[in-house]
Amino acid sequence: MFDAINHHASKYISPSGEDIKVFNTQLQPKRVAKKTFLLQEGEICRFEGFINKGCIRTYYINETGAEVTLQFAIEDWWVSDIASFHEQKPSRMFIETLEDCELLILSPTSKETLLREAPCFERMFRIMVQRNLSRMQERLFKTITTTAVDKYLDFLERYPTIPQRVAQHYIASYLGFSPEFLSKVRTKLSKK
Amino acid sequence: MFDAINHHASKYISPSGEDIKVFNTQLQPKRVAKKTFLLQEGEICRFEGFINKGCIRTYYINETGAEVTLQFAIEDWWVSDIASFHEQKPSRMFIETLEDCELLILSPTSKETLLREAPCFERMFRIMVQRNLSRMQERLFKTITTTAVDKYLDFLERYPTIPQRVAQHYIASYLGFSPEFLSKVRTKLSKK
Repeated sequence: MFDAINHHASKYISPSGEDIKVFNTQLQPKRVAKKTFLLQEGEICRFEGFINKGCIRTYYINETGAEVTLQFAIEDWWVSDIASFHEQKPSRMFIETLEDCELLILSPTSKETLLREAPCFERMFRIMVQRNLSRMQERLFKTITTTAVDKYLDFLERYPTIPQRVAQHYIASYLGFSPEFLSKVRTKLSKK
Repeated sequence: MFDAINHHASKYISPSGEDIKVFNTQLQPKRVAKKTFLLQEGEICRFEGFINKGCIRTYYINETGAEVTLQFAIEDWWVSDIASFHEQKPSRMFIETLEDCELLILSPTSKETLLREAPCFERMFRIMVQRNLSRMQERLFKTITTTAVDKYLDFLERYPTIPQRVAQHYIASYLGFSPEFLSKVRTKLSKK
């Protein structure tokens, strides 16, 4: 159950056997059925979840009532609303499972215990958050400067397995396209 | 010279005297005149700079050739292109001083040394990056959902001293307004 997450941690840090024991003790396994909300707008996010199995979507609802997909997360990724989790303030997001999922959950208290008893994990979370910030920055740039075809190609590079796993209209809402426009882009690419 | 940054660190962590000594040894003081580029598009960012004195603007140039302001940074803030710094890849940004500045600089090597010799600073950087990520997420939401007047009021709340320190057209480019439109928003507010 902890193989994937321990391997994940070893990409960032070199924890001792004792550190790993503390880490695994703090993780709460959780199975969640497909199409379940882990978080809804207005709630406080009380988890950081590592995905052992499954696919999850994060989105918000914009002023016209449309869903805007922020992120897809699959095996070996963490999912959370980091702002809501750390400041314990209401979230603007929805986090919803798209497939049956197996998660390992850290609560605010268990994360605190982990970082107190095995402080080497500070480094893992620092690097993870940095990468997250880099990606969000990059996405902000790309949203503004890239053509539709390049946006879709970037998406495929970043999320190679997602198109087989999730509905097209979710991908369209990630890219800021209408489903019809995404379909046109795909046709254009398939003719190349 | 290190009073402000040591006080800043104490808001996140409780370093020992030895930790503080390591920290201050790794910081390189640097004076930079007004209107100097610390980073230009295409360069690799080799610094994280703590601002002891002065005001700095981060921006990029969009596809129409217009400057888009990402951030203003003043005393007690850090400035860097975190993605470029940590992955040592070319930046998309410009970082420019708006006033004469006094900085304390960490290079990739000195940051590495700091974190190896005083690992309690991992926590400080982790929390700082988390807040940065929260703010960027919030800004993404607000850009999409807020009215012009509310955007400007949010800006004033976040940057109360900036309107006295920087040219109006920089503030307009942060808010995504034309300078004329910002002027209208300010007039509207002053009549309230």
